[in-house]
Amino acid sequence: MTQIYDRVALIGLGLIASSMFWAIKRGGLAGEVTGYARSAQTRETARKIGLCDRICESAEEAVKDADLVVLCVPVGAMGGVAEQIAPYLKPGATVSDVGSVKAAVIQAVGPHIPEGVHFIPAHPLAGTEHSGPESGFATLFDNRWCLLVPVPGTDPAAMEHLRALWEGCGAHVDEMEAEHHDLVLAVTSHAPHLIAYTMVGVADDLRRVTDSEVIKYSAAGFRDFTRIAASDPTMWRDVFLTNKDATLEILGRFTEELFALQRAIRMGDGEHLFDYFTRTRAIRRGIIEAGQDTDAPDFGRGKVAR
Amino acid sequence: MTQIYDRVALIGLGLIASSMFWAIKRGGLAGEVTGYARSAQTRETARKIGLCDRICESAEEAVKDADLVVLCVPVGAMGGVAEQIAPYLKPGATVSDVGSVKAAVIQAVGPHIPEGVHFIPAHPLAGTEHSGPESGFATLFDNRWCLLVPVPGTDPAAMEHLRALWEGCGAHVDEMEAEHHDLVLAVTSHAPHLIAYTMVGVADDLRRVTDSEVIKYSAAGFRDFTRIAASDPTMWRDVFLTNKDATLEILGRFTEELFALQRAIRMGDGEHLFDYFTRTRAIRRGIIEAGQDTDAPDFGRGKVAR
Repeated sequence: MTQIYDRVALIGLGLIASSMFWAIKRGGLAGEVTGYARSAQTRETARKIGLCDRICESAEEAVKDADLVVLCVPVGAMGGVAEQIAPYLKPGATVSDVGSVKAAVIQAVGPHIPEGVHFIPAHPLAGTEHSGPESGFATLFDNRWCLLVPVPGTDPAAMEHLRALWEGCGAHVDEMEAEHHDLVLAVTSHAPHLIAYTMVGVADDLRRVTDSEVIKYSAAGFRDFTRIAASDPTMWRDVFLTNKDATLEILGRFTEELFALQRAIRMGDGEHLFDYFTRTRAIRRGIIEAGQDTDAPDFGRGKVAR
Repeated sequence: MTQIYDRVALIGLGLIASSMFWAIKRGGLAGEVTGYARSAQTRETARKIGLCDRICESAEEAVKDADLVVLCVPVGAMGGVAEQIAPYLKPGATVSDVGSVKAAVIQAVGPHIPEGVHFIPAHPLAGTEHSGPESGFATLFDNRWCLLVPVPGTDPAAMEHLRALWEGCGAHVDEMEAEHHDLVLAVTSHAPHLIAYTMVGVADDLRRVTDSEVIKYSAAGFRDFTRIAASDPTMWRDVFLTNKDATLEILGRFTEELFALQRAIRMGDGEHLFDYFTRTRAIRRGIIEAGQDTDAPDFGRGKVAR
């Protein structure tokens, strides 16, 4: 139990913020955690389930006297929230976020941060397909990565505090430059999500394959896609709109490769297919060796218990 | 413990055959189970781990006196095996298979089946990304579907026996026509697999995003793709080559949809993206309601324990 901040404010109370709260409580990382969500219903739910020490009726009230303010709203809403809370931020406080895109957030939030307040963008690489205040759990960040994306001239002490908070939440912390972050995430997360959304949409469109059959016989492959494609629509809309260039670049590459494989199928080129599939197996082995997943039949998710 | 067949022969000893053996033993569904694999090393491993009551040195020997012969080899090898074992099949026996494609298997195997032997193609919708004789486990088929694809004029009693075997292995059994099966599977399994292979291949190609970063930060989305893309290369090569038309049709639809979403990203059409993502969420709910997955954090895979 090492308290890192006296007061933490969470703006937006979805999966990430609620998981942060439970992880902060688990670790005793903050004296008080305040919370605010735009929706009255979300605030009511939060109060009912004991999410945050104090739920405030405005973002201004929530950030007052906070040493750390974490913006946990969709990427497209970050700029507006930053503008709104800017006048109420405590001098010396740190503002951070949990957005899946970093360059656009820096551009939207940065200009609103007052002199004397630190701004350290961050991105915890963790999530489930669930959303809302009730979806969070204390172990979400355990053994996952949290990327800090500091802008030039960031205060080392403020960095150390934020790093300690995320480590206290169970995460491994790494630093990365914003543009590079957005490209890496386009590969590992953004493009795969759009692809999964697309495939699920195609299945839904097919009239000859009735819904019930697609659902009934979804055990292989497709089921994993539907899980990815069940993620929060607002969050993902904003991700694609704000990481447009990197996502479109990766999708362009993807389409090229897919066409090459389609051609191999059409031409009956089994060797091409076999070699390709053999190569992709190695990547899976790398992921298991890197400890980002396990080889066990429950795919390492048994530990993600509430 | 209800014995359904006196003797079952499993030809090919990979994930499906080895899981069938353990499930048959669990249920006491057969008097003796013989097994054969082309590779001497696989036969040796099978003997070492007690897979099958008797491992034979030839397919001919394995199928001798068997009441049920199940072809568990890659789809592209089914025809050759059928031709090889045909003269040794017991009159009144049933030949079945576990291939992921049905029309091509019927075309390749059917002509070799002698008069007086029943041929009932089947496809258990279950699997993991692992392969080989050591990858099987008794619960693989529990609560999964097994589709029987009988050809016209199939003997009802033979059908009942095969159905009872699969139900004894824990599966729900359904019947489907071959061409329809191949289309449904193209949507729910074959196209998703090719797409996952493609995305993992793209990630591997990117020089600016090093391997280690792709692997390290794979928690979201991409990790699920790598699991799918780690599946057996030979099996999947054969699936795509033998279910060519349906797979290419679905991939064509997929590409159209993907282009529309790419266009929406490029044009900044957030409404299109939001509506699309909202629609795909409903399919996920349908899958959970249909019991093909659970909403729990371990995604229902905890029960798939060896």
